[in-house]
Amino acid sequence: MKSALRRPKTRRLAAPAPSNGRAGKAKAIYAFGGGKADGRAGMKTLLGGKGANLAEMTNLGVPVPPGMTITTEMCNTYYALGERWPHGLEAQLRQKMRWLEGVAKKGFGDPKNPLLVSVRSGSAVSMPGMMDTILNLGLNAQTVQGLIVKTENPRFAYDAYRRFIQMYGDVVLEVEHKQFEEILGKKKLKYGAKTDADLSADALKELVAEYRQLVKRAKGTDFPEDPFEQLTGAVNAVFRSWNNERAKIYRRLNTIPHSLGTAVTVQSMVFGNMGSTSLTGVCFSRDPSTGENVFYGEYLVNAQGEDVVAGIRTPKPIAELKREFSKLYQQLTKISQRLERYFKDIQDMEFTVEEGTLYMLQTRTGKRTARAAVAIATDFVKEKLITREQALLRVDPAQIDQLLHPTIDPKAKPRVIAKGLPASPGAAVGKVVFNAHRAVELAEEASERVILVREETSPEDIEGMAAAQGILTARGGMTSHAAVVARGMGKCCVAGCSDIIVREEENHFEAGEATVKELDYITLNGTTGEVMLGEVPLVQPSLTGSFKQVLSWADQTRRLRVRANADTPQDAKVARDFGAEGIGLCRTEHMFFGEERLPVVREMILAKDASARKAALAKLLPFQKQDFLGIFEVMKGLPVTIRLLDPPLHEFLPNTPEDQERVSKQLGIDVRQLRETVNSLHEFNPMLGHRGCRLGITYPEINEMQAQAIFEAACELARDGVKVVPEVMIPLVGHPQEFRIAKRTIDEVARQTMARYKVALQYLVGTMIEVPRAAVVADAIAQEAEFFSFGTNDLTQMTFGFSRDDIGKFLPHYLKERILPADPFVKLDQDGVGSLVRLGIEKGRAARKGLKVGICGEHGGEPSSIDFCHRVGMDYVSCSPYRVPIARLAAAHAALREKK
Amino acid sequence: MKSALRRPKTRRLAAPAPSNGRAGKAKAIYAFGGGKADGRAGMKTLLGGKGANLAEMTNLGVPVPPGMTITTEMCNTYYALGERWPHGLEAQLRQKMRWLEGVAKKGFGDPKNPLLVSVRSGSAVSMPGMMDTILNLGLNAQTVQGLIVKTENPRFAYDAYRRFIQMYGDVVLEVEHKQFEEILGKKKLKYGAKTDADLSADALKELVAEYRQLVKRAKGTDFPEDPFEQLTGAVNAVFRSWNNERAKIYRRLNTIPHSLGTAVTVQSMVFGNMGSTSLTGVCFSRDPSTGENVFYGEYLVNAQGEDVVAGIRTPKPIAELKREFSKLYQQLTKISQRLERYFKDIQDMEFTVEEGTLYMLQTRTGKRTARAAVAIATDFVKEKLITREQALLRVDPAQIDQLLHPTIDPKAKPRVIAKGLPASPGAAVGKVVFNAHRAVELAEEASERVILVREETSPEDIEGMAAAQGILTARGGMTSHAAVVARGMGKCCVAGCSDIIVREEENHFEAGEATVKELDYITLNGTTGEVMLGEVPLVQPSLTGSFKQVLSWADQTRRLRVRANADTPQDAKVARDFGAEGIGLCRTEHMFFGEERLPVVREMILAKDASARKAALAKLLPFQKQDFLGIFEVMKGLPVTIRLLDPPLHEFLPNTPEDQERVSKQLGIDVRQLRETVNSLHEFNPMLGHRGCRLGITYPEINEMQAQAIFEAACELARDGVKVVPEVMIPLVGHPQEFRIAKRTIDEVARQTMARYKVALQYLVGTMIEVPRAAVVADAIAQEAEFFSFGTNDLTQMTFGFSRDDIGKFLPHYLKERILPADPFVKLDQDGVGSLVRLGIEKGRAARKGLKVGICGEHGGEPSSIDFCHRVGMDYVSCSPYRVPIARLAAAHAALREKK
Repeated sequence: MKSALRRPKTRRLAAPAPSNGRAGKAKAIYAFGGGKADGRAGMKTLLGGKGANLAEMTNLGVPVPPGMTITTEMCNTYYALGERWPHGLEAQLRQKMRWLEGVAKKGFGDPKNPLLVSVRSGSAVSMPGMMDTILNLGLNAQTVQGLIVKTENPRFAYDAYRRFIQMYGDVVLEVEHKQFEEILGKKKLKYGAKTDADLSADALKELVAEYRQLVKRAKGTDFPEDPFEQLTGAVNAVFRSWNNERAKIYRRLNTIPHSLGTAVTVQSMVFGNMGSTSLTGVCFSRDPSTGENVFYGEYLVNAQGEDVVAGIRTPKPIAELKREFSKLYQQLTKISQRLERYFKDIQDMEFTVEEGTLYMLQTRTGKRTARAAVAIATDFVKEKLITREQALLRVDPAQIDQLLHPTIDPKAKPRVIAKGLPASPGAAVGKVVFNAHRAVELAEEASERVILVREETSPEDIEGMAAAQGILTARGGMTSHAAVVARGMGKCCVAGCSDIIVREEENHFEAGEATVKELDYITLNGTTGEVMLGEVPLVQPSLTGSFKQVLSWADQTRRLRVRANADTPQDAKVARDFGAEGIGLCRTEHMFFGEERLPVVREMILAKDASARKAALAKLLPFQKQDFLGIFEVMKGLPVTIRLLDPPLHEFLPNTPEDQERVSKQLGIDVRQLRETVNSLHEFNPMLGHRGCRLGITYPEINEMQAQAIFEAACELARDGVKVVPEVMIPLVGHPQEFRIAKRTIDEVARQTMARYKVALQYLVGTMIEVPRAAVVADAIAQEAEFFSFGTNDLTQMTFGFSRDDIGKFLPHYLKERILPADPFVKLDQDGVGSLVRLGIEKGRAARKGLKVGICGEHGGEPSSIDFCHRVGMDYVSCSPYRVPIARLAAAHAALREKK
Repeated sequence: MKSALRRPKTRRLAAPAPSNGRAGKAKAIYAFGGGKADGRAGMKTLLGGKGANLAEMTNLGVPVPPGMTITTEMCNTYYALGERWPHGLEAQLRQKMRWLEGVAKKGFGDPKNPLLVSVRSGSAVSMPGMMDTILNLGLNAQTVQGLIVKTENPRFAYDAYRRFIQMYGDVVLEVEHKQFEEILGKKKLKYGAKTDADLSADALKELVAEYRQLVKRAKGTDFPEDPFEQLTGAVNAVFRSWNNERAKIYRRLNTIPHSLGTAVTVQSMVFGNMGSTSLTGVCFSRDPSTGENVFYGEYLVNAQGEDVVAGIRTPKPIAELKREFSKLYQQLTKISQRLERYFKDIQDMEFTVEEGTLYMLQTRTGKRTARAAVAIATDFVKEKLITREQALLRVDPAQIDQLLHPTIDPKAKPRVIAKGLPASPGAAVGKVVFNAHRAVELAEEASERVILVREETSPEDIEGMAAAQGILTARGGMTSHAAVVARGMGKCCVAGCSDIIVREEENHFEAGEATVKELDYITLNGTTGEVMLGEVPLVQPSLTGSFKQVLSWADQTRRLRVRANADTPQDAKVARDFGAEGIGLCRTEHMFFGEERLPVVREMILAKDASARKAALAKLLPFQKQDFLGIFEVMKGLPVTIRLLDPPLHEFLPNTPEDQERVSKQLGIDVRQLRETVNSLHEFNPMLGHRGCRLGITYPEINEMQAQAIFEAACELARDGVKVVPEVMIPLVGHPQEFRIAKRTIDEVARQTMARYKVALQYLVGTMIEVPRAAVVADAIAQEAEFFSFGTNDLTQMTFGFSRDDIGKFLPHYLKERILPADPFVKLDQDGVGSLVRLGIEKGRAARKGLKVGICGEHGGEPSSIDFCHRVGMDYVSCSPYRVPIARLAAAHAALREKK
């Protein structure tokens, strides 16, 4: 057996490494084969998922082609040394290759009995398709002859050889892929071949020669003949592929640390394309899309793995294997079941049969849909494979969002015409309308499904939004009016879609070359931001039994309570149905936007003095009271946190000259006067302006009216025996004195109202902690406030100094450059904002023992933020009704994580 | 001797006080008289300034009419009990009045030999004219007869009586003052009397009767005859006067705690109006306006104290007293000198001579002008009365602002036509102009003094502002563009003057009925906000020798270094002359507003890509470099902290359609394109938008250009042997990664530039801590940053969630209602913002030992904030050049306070 490894070393592959980069001390390469392996499944960080599982399978006696894995540590060292190998790595690799020759009983570079290997990447976290792979490594002008002799199949041998040169040339030598394709194309033309498979052995032999000339022309050197030189080149290429652009982007998008590095697995080749008793395939131990306990997969006879992926030939479903090769099928299902039971999770496997012999090439935890995740988790518990706690941890809270909204049918092939921000998840189909009135008209009177398309929405569009299936806007960000309101309604929304130009007055919008007119159908995907032409089929969500099961386990596990942010009885109903244990944020200003109410609100704002303002507020009182009656009734017995009016008053006034004209007529006031008021209320930084408790302090009559509505509603119900737990929340408090003054008004109104109704109610008055100062002086505030609710939206804005409406100009760049690990409005910034939250809780509880603390920012529905809320000892999280199940599960995860 | 005190008690003055409000245990009343006193000067908190000093004078043997002081504690108890006397107080008062009768050898209510008393307020902090006083108390139908017999002067006795009824009726019984005046007026008419003094004894007797009828008519009861009832009523009235509106406002304006309470001094009356050997006067131990060591004061013969104040007769200067009553003069000056030496400060005294006998009625520390304060402090040190440290503490840092700007001549009687915000102190006279070009033209070409009057200023007005003596704007707050720029220039500014209507196009402005045309003279008082018609005479500031002396003592005492905020070589020069030890904040964007530069800046902003932007930046480089050369040269050897570009780019673009039209022509670009850029750069909350380091990170070429300008300038000077200490400051950092990226660029440019010039410079790269997050993660930031400068303007905005530009809608209300103790943009909010500053310093120094820390917000020039900066261990404060002397003195105060 002649081996490339026994030849004298002719040159160093790399300059000597500095002494801190030695590979000699640590084990750099882990072998597997001949029934035992150096590694095991638990060593994913060091060996990558693939390498660790190959080792484990080898130890389990599953048939695996022998090989070895170079550790991720070597990859990191390679980068630390400026892309050079550490001292000693080469020697270890040569030594292990010699061992492999012994196990495989072949020689690396042996012209008679050549050992061929694959070289693959593999990191601790799966990054499918992101990094490079080389197959058939070890072929050269001599060894190809040995392969011909051994297989008695020149066509197979030359095909393997030309594939190797092409792959290696592209990946390792960086010769343009398309140059190989051009040569191949010409060759097919020459021989009238339709596909690669139609090329004869001779044609392939010619191809090999031409490929080698191409490499020489492009690189100025010959294609490497020495198998070990080929190998070191391939290992380097895999190392390098860790930092290629698409891998870096993938990691950024999936928040995978760049520091993991990739392992490199070198494994002896087996061939699924050696004739009619050879085949290759992929399989799952269960159906990964439904979770059903059926063996699942597909295969191709006489093919290599890449053919399955390439999609040129259509693979057969795994059921066919049972008929074609029943023994093999039995062997495979047995291995599948064994691996599933061993790893205690659904397995995603690659296998190859070489001339009747089965080899497992890979097994890993199978990716699955949310539906499957839930089904598998509950089934595994039933099968006593895992505990309930393990089952809970198997379901990713972020993923189950899929189960709570309609989704695009995966089988559909829609025409995407534009892409905007995925502002509110789910999918929606409907006829396009360009104004809210039309939306209400069509939806309510003609029972049509409509999509409301606007340049951007304003409070006046609320009813139109409620009537629509989904909302599409051309402007505004993830927290624009459209986005926030849509998420609150659990309604699909694509916002800030700058690909479209909305021509409202002409009743159409343009998206590239497409023009979409009123009443044309479109489909929105609020989870991806895609806008599609026509009616794309949807899949409706179903709260299956197993989903309910998982959530009930979650309820038994979690410590955090879960409340919902809901502003209407309808929202409150949805929230309760999803398992909310109270309302954590009822935004009263949303009640001010109704069609009958807005004019009265405007009358209040335009009032010349306190008495005119009181008169307008008196007209609003019955509306507010009605809202609270409805909400209290739905939530009976559960706490309802009502936030007093928060936004600056100018948000309620019309901004465009046309709207001002219209409103001035409606209210019977001079348009110039209206305009002057709008101008006088204009603010340079409304986020930091006259809003929150500052409104109720400067206009106490607003607080009085709201308190009256709350307590009249509560007393009426209480008198009728309904249990009511109102928690009045004062927004934007920064100084204890603000709280004291606002609370005084509320307590006074409560006292009077209860006396009038002859009812004694338990109620609390607390505050939102959303201004950094509030967190800093939380002890002083807690002396007065009976609960805290962290308003992490505004707290994030002010702690970072980021206006949510304006971050579009720099946040994308910040995320791309990893200046910030994530959008802090999506995931709570635990280091910065979180420190203030922690400080606020500590100080608050120091001043008031057992102070009730919750969160009501959008983070309240985001799993990593919920974990944080658990760790800092909050009592509850509050989120959009449609995220309540996610929060219940995430809270259980947090409790389990803590237990560990 | 018949006494009202011996009469049986007929009724309780107040309901029994609850047991927690007993006066019996504590000493409630402190007596003085007969050569000794219960109290002493150190008891000001308890006895008020007046009572404490009367006690001290009595103990010193100075002639003082005997009396007693009811403590401030009693006033507070009075309020705590709901405006009732504590149990026991009445008994103590009766007892002490009996003692007084003994010392004065007169009886309270004795018809033969009546004891008359004055009842005066007096708190620990002087509140001149804010509270009430009653004189001649004890007179009634019987005792007035005794007074007539004793004085043999019926006119005097009836005059005293009618004055008492009038004063008591007004203050205690709350009968309208003008009703007494009406009766008096009719009486004068009836007898053809020009003044009160022309009324005969009989006329005054009639007046007494009619006054008593008025009281009976208005109150339904008789005017109280019982002297003790009179006394308790008067004491109540003084207690009540502590909480009258004007006293509350005065305390708010002067930040005097409401909890101090007032003492009540009851003192036996002496009369300066008993004939030609009686007189009354006020005097100062030195001249309170210049500080000169000359006895100073004025007096009126045959008059009561109120006549001196009333200004009907013109008092004589004290020098006349020497001629008229030389013995008395000697006695008085001796007492004055004695009191000054005893109290070791300038004394402000009231005295009365009754028939040749001198009585001192009051002595207190004399209020003085800043000029006098400085002169007196240094003279007292020379006279070895006080130490240097005491002298330093005698000069109020806030007050010396007067010495650094021109002021309105106190003798002038200007016509005030409008009042705006006192945006930048000092006074200015000039001809009105309505645009910046005209200001430059007149000022530079015709050497005219001009006042620039604008609706509001914009960056384009900078040169006009520099050319003007002062600036007047109709809109904008204390931190509007005009205000900030003017303060930086040390230039007088009245901003947000809503009393005026500016008609720029018609070249005039209106203020009430006045119309002021271009080139009319006006005068501004930037310290009060007043706008005056015509040329009002000014007093120029002078840095006298004693002022320099005080500052040099301050320099020897303080630990904090003092730097200045300066953007130009001119500012830097002023700062050095005022003693700045470096520049703590050089705002580079101010350099972008020059007439030649703004078009280039706009070119940079409108650039379509990085290369076009670089081309524009290359044109800006020479300007920036020139600025830095100038500043480094002025500051040679002292550190200069340069902040990289901070404001959002839209601040540099024209906003009005007319300006856009003009600029588009100037730059040769399409006006629509310009408008689109302006629109695309529009931000909802620019304070929280794309600014600060976010600019330099998204457009690294801006940072590169700025760093190049800094280091080229520094290297050129260093090469010529000038010592240069550049400190590059990255603004608005919230995350260490932002800092790291910006610093990398700066270090790289520095390295290249130094290599090019073959110069090695010491320089630092640090950051502003102005985003709350930065304070929270200061440890991580300090691992990279070499210094911190707290930008407390923005830190206050974000910590409170207050936009400085928008607080006008609620902050005045907050201050009025004492929700906040002070404007947090003026005085640093130590509890909230200060906690973050403290945290930032602790964390920063934990990560980097000896981290250099300063402040560069406007608080850096405010004494109470400087004290805080000292206490939290900052290395320096930086403030406007014109506040550097204030900061030097305040820093010394802080060091001395700490020593105590």
